[in-house]
Amino acid sequence: MGLFWDHGVVYKSVNDVHLGPNTDDIYLHADVKAPRMAGLIAKIFVWFLEIKLIGDILLYFLKKNNRIQKLVSFGVMEDSPLYVPLHPFEDFKEEEEEVKSLCPGLSPAEQVQHAIDCLQSSDATLQDSHFSFRRWKIMDYYRAYSSRKITPLVVAERLISAIVQSSEPGMDMSFFISYDSRDILRQATESTLRYQRGEPISVLDGVPIAVKDEIDCMPYPTTGGSKWLHKVRPCKEDACCVKRLRSCGAILVGKTNMHELGAGTSGINPHYGTSRNPYNPERISGGSSSGSAAVVCAGLCPVALGVDGGGSVRMPAALCGVVGFKPSYGRIPHAGVLPLNWTVGMVGVLAGTVEDSLIVYAAISGQPKPHQSTMPRLKLPMLKHSSMSGIKLAKSDEWFNDCSDDIRACCFKALACLQKLYGWETVEVTIPDIEVMRLAHYVTIGSECTASIAHHLENGGRSESGWDVRVALSIYGSFGSRDYLNAQRIRNRQMRFHEKIFSMADVIVSPMVGVTAYEIKDDAQETGELDYVNGAALVRYSIAGNFLGLPAVTVPVGYDRLGLPIGIQFIGKPWSEAKLIQIAYAMEALCEAEYKKPQVFYDLLGEC
Amino acid sequence: MGLFWDHGVVYKSVNDVHLGPNTDDIYLHADVKAPRMAGLIAKIFVWFLEIKLIGDILLYFLKKNNRIQKLVSFGVMEDSPLYVPLHPFEDFKEEEEEVKSLCPGLSPAEQVQHAIDCLQSSDATLQDSHFSFRRWKIMDYYRAYSSRKITPLVVAERLISAIVQSSEPGMDMSFFISYDSRDILRQATESTLRYQRGEPISVLDGVPIAVKDEIDCMPYPTTGGSKWLHKVRPCKEDACCVKRLRSCGAILVGKTNMHELGAGTSGINPHYGTSRNPYNPERISGGSSSGSAAVVCAGLCPVALGVDGGGSVRMPAALCGVVGFKPSYGRIPHAGVLPLNWTVGMVGVLAGTVEDSLIVYAAISGQPKPHQSTMPRLKLPMLKHSSMSGIKLAKSDEWFNDCSDDIRACCFKALACLQKLYGWETVEVTIPDIEVMRLAHYVTIGSECTASIAHHLENGGRSESGWDVRVALSIYGSFGSRDYLNAQRIRNRQMRFHEKIFSMADVIVSPMVGVTAYEIKDDAQETGELDYVNGAALVRYSIAGNFLGLPAVTVPVGYDRLGLPIGIQFIGKPWSEAKLIQIAYAMEALCEAEYKKPQVFYDLLGEC
Repeated sequence: MGLFWDHGVVYKSVNDVHLGPNTDDIYLHADVKAPRMAGLIAKIFVWFLEIKLIGDILLYFLKKNNRIQKLVSFGVMEDSPLYVPLHPFEDFKEEEEEVKSLCPGLSPAEQVQHAIDCLQSSDATLQDSHFSFRRWKIMDYYRAYSSRKITPLVVAERLISAIVQSSEPGMDMSFFISYDSRDILRQATESTLRYQRGEPISVLDGVPIAVKDEIDCMPYPTTGGSKWLHKVRPCKEDACCVKRLRSCGAILVGKTNMHELGAGTSGINPHYGTSRNPYNPERISGGSSSGSAAVVCAGLCPVALGVDGGGSVRMPAALCGVVGFKPSYGRIPHAGVLPLNWTVGMVGVLAGTVEDSLIVYAAISGQPKPHQSTMPRLKLPMLKHSSMSGIKLAKSDEWFNDCSDDIRACCFKALACLQKLYGWETVEVTIPDIEVMRLAHYVTIGSECTASIAHHLENGGRSESGWDVRVALSIYGSFGSRDYLNAQRIRNRQMRFHEKIFSMADVIVSPMVGVTAYEIKDDAQETGELDYVNGAALVRYSIAGNFLGLPAVTVPVGYDRLGLPIGIQFIGKPWSEAKLIQIAYAMEALCEAEYKKPQVFYDLLGEC
Repeated sequence: MGLFWDHGVVYKSVNDVHLGPNTDDIYLHADVKAPRMAGLIAKIFVWFLEIKLIGDILLYFLKKNNRIQKLVSFGVMEDSPLYVPLHPFEDFKEEEEEVKSLCPGLSPAEQVQHAIDCLQSSDATLQDSHFSFRRWKIMDYYRAYSSRKITPLVVAERLISAIVQSSEPGMDMSFFISYDSRDILRQATESTLRYQRGEPISVLDGVPIAVKDEIDCMPYPTTGGSKWLHKVRPCKEDACCVKRLRSCGAILVGKTNMHELGAGTSGINPHYGTSRNPYNPERISGGSSSGSAAVVCAGLCPVALGVDGGGSVRMPAALCGVVGFKPSYGRIPHAGVLPLNWTVGMVGVLAGTVEDSLIVYAAISGQPKPHQSTMPRLKLPMLKHSSMSGIKLAKSDEWFNDCSDDIRACCFKALACLQKLYGWETVEVTIPDIEVMRLAHYVTIGSECTASIAHHLENGGRSESGWDVRVALSIYGSFGSRDYLNAQRIRNRQMRFHEKIFSMADVIVSPMVGVTAYEIKDDAQETGELDYVNGAALVRYSIAGNFLGLPAVTVPVGYDRLGLPIGIQFIGKPWSEAKLIQIAYAMEALCEAEYKKPQVFYDLLGEC
């Protein structure tokens, strides 16, 4: 942050900004003045916004002198834009311990096998359940199938009846936008036959995996949580990541619910219902990958795919007490994902455990053309509870503390455990202009969403959208090219700030969200809800993962006084997924014994 | 081009567009409806445009349903944006004949020496002047200095008196924005001493080189052709390319005139006068690198530097009958060039001959950090008049023909010579959506210019700008982020079209401009001039070089019936500068004998 001039902030040169603990940098709290809106008020607001010219003038006055204008649009800086968060790399043999470097061109199933080789041999088995509560893992399914204690077909049947039950009036969990029992049973039958022949394709064979309805997965339409997008953009084949999971034998069980067009953080969806939080069904599961987080939380799948454009994988994962892992930008092919933006969204994994994130990460990562060099080789970490020492965690005090008391206390305690048990060191840093980055990211995702789908909106999509999304779309469409370009210049600044911070530490540590799952209010169900205050608190810690393309992971570390899950986040250096997973695994190991069972939970393997 | 829907064009998939000669692609002629504006009318128009909100509404109606809206803003396409025209490459040993591949990390003087090794040994010397007219070349200066026929100091004195004479009332050539006689003489004295000691640094030692006032060059301010930019952005050191020339011993003789902020194509500058065309001083020299083209044309320097953001090097070169060469985006470091845009502007060379472009290209090319791999190794071509065979020239008929009769006939004749004398083959192709690309480029350069300098404009710069530029800046500032992003999607489409065309041919050939130098009208001198019709004709053939970052060169090939120069253009594959220079050299060899002497010409070596 720098001086204010008449219109906007004058930013210092990146090299003049000090990133140590006691700087003159002022930590800007999110200062959202927009009131919460839902119901009739939201409808009236939309009605004005969508009148030509009048709406523009209304937005002109609403935006006048607001933070986006002062900090982004009229910000003065010398930096040039950085448009795409792709990081340069050198593919040399690193001296990293305990990391497997894979050759390019392996099949997904081969990569999965390498991931399995990385698991601790002494690890928990199906029998090993001394924890008060833990979810079944991929290896649990695989061992149960391999030992013929249960078949994929029986699991599929249980899953289908669980979905049906969770959808009944009174429950209304709204986990899925679409699922097809026959298609699930068909896949399960084929998998069952493979196990009968003793020829499972991989440990993923027969494992139920759900896919966010933003990712193409046959035979389902890809709605993006909307009522219309699938009509103008038919789903013609599996997305690349889905294809890879399918090639490993996984059962694709359907398309999970999401915040409409990913344009919100609550997961409140007026068209398909709101994915309720299995820990407390009166509360949100977060978004936009709401359903993917909720199904993993509720035990329906050990793993689900999401897409993370502004924390959309990690944030609902934290609210639902599961692991959320988003690799570096470019690591997982984006083909077959709805083009709701181009430079901030990327596929991520929601899973009950870090181990399962690793397995699915191995299955879906890598370039379609293996010998192109836009990313370094895939590296997989050996998962061990011991051994890792000397990790440095960068922590930015005011940012870390900008959350509810319970979250702060819980994350602080988790961090203290890491320091005490592993001897890891915390490095106090200042990450400047985090709130500026949030706004620049908002301008970016909004502008890209507009350019991508505006013609569909003008062709009728807008009137079929939820009222909250219509407000978002009006704001998205109002950004100028100057706003967009200045946002990219801020991206460049932040990239350089983060590079410097990563020269001091291995990862950045923070809470995952500023608030735990909040209540679903009655007036929000039909119109959707505009709640920029809670929204800002939810995405507070997410942005670097998207805007800078950095790999990031959240691990559940406890519960607030209401019993709602709390997650901690680790943000890694570019392409450092292997180390990040190791760190997450170490964190998980400290907390595992304390996991609580959600109110809504289905035990698909339990009775076998 | 595709179908029109209610709002805008629906573009075909790139793979469905046929690039052969007889396609259904409709060649869109520039359809500029804006009237020419200058004088009082321009002032009144600006007055309205700059009233807050009123100006926005005025622009809203002006832009409604215009081509930018239909073809760019509301265009419907599946392509994702391509933000930066940097081309991937593989640095393998090519089987190219007659090309020298340089190791990274050589000094500029060493690179120049390699260029000299590429010149034909039997080439013209100082004595060899059987042509009716030809300009002195770098090697002429070097030989004259080395043989002590003349000293750099004498040349500098002649140059200074020529500048003084050309600036006198009645002449008013307005070549330079600033020059400092003492600084020129100091450099010339040092160079003279080096020659006296028999220790010239390189063939560039003592050679006068002018620099467009968009590039930092001590001790001058960098005005960008404006009255204010240098006040808010002081020039603190030489730009990287200037530093390199200086390290070769070149005499930096001052800062050449240009169209204000590069925001126009005529070179008409209300603050510093209009660089007049030495072939006919009543006419423009083109722009924005107007002065750099004019000084080379008038014999003041064998070479000048320009910056090419939308043809700004090549187009004035063509209007002034000199060579204009713009390497691939990224080839010449951009450090120290005014940041008027980020993704379309690049340093280029204006020279009397292809040979001199090669020498200066060798001097200033290469990364500052030589072992980074964002571009392939520098390659220099052997210059020979014979030998090159089998060249394929892609020609898009309707586009090629969209120029004045004289230009068409002259370029056609030149092309026929190449076919006849060298046996080169012409491949008829269709380059789709060229007019769309021009508009997308306009949105891009306008948006980037706004983001870069808007805060200065708001701080007072706007009111100090010329009236034509104020209109341009108002339009520039009116683009939305959707316009910008769709322009980048069009960039991606065009990149792929051009890749396909380059699989069929070595270079694309076209005229350089649609019209020759037009008259400077009286009412334009004080306010500047808005002439979008002539502007569109001037940039018609330039855009691929900027928007797609392709290397391109123009070579003079004749004169129209008024004796005004005509240039042909070759656009090369990414990073193919070496071959492009060879092709330009072959073209130049065919026309050299016909060169005409400009009305205004200074013969700095002549009497020695």
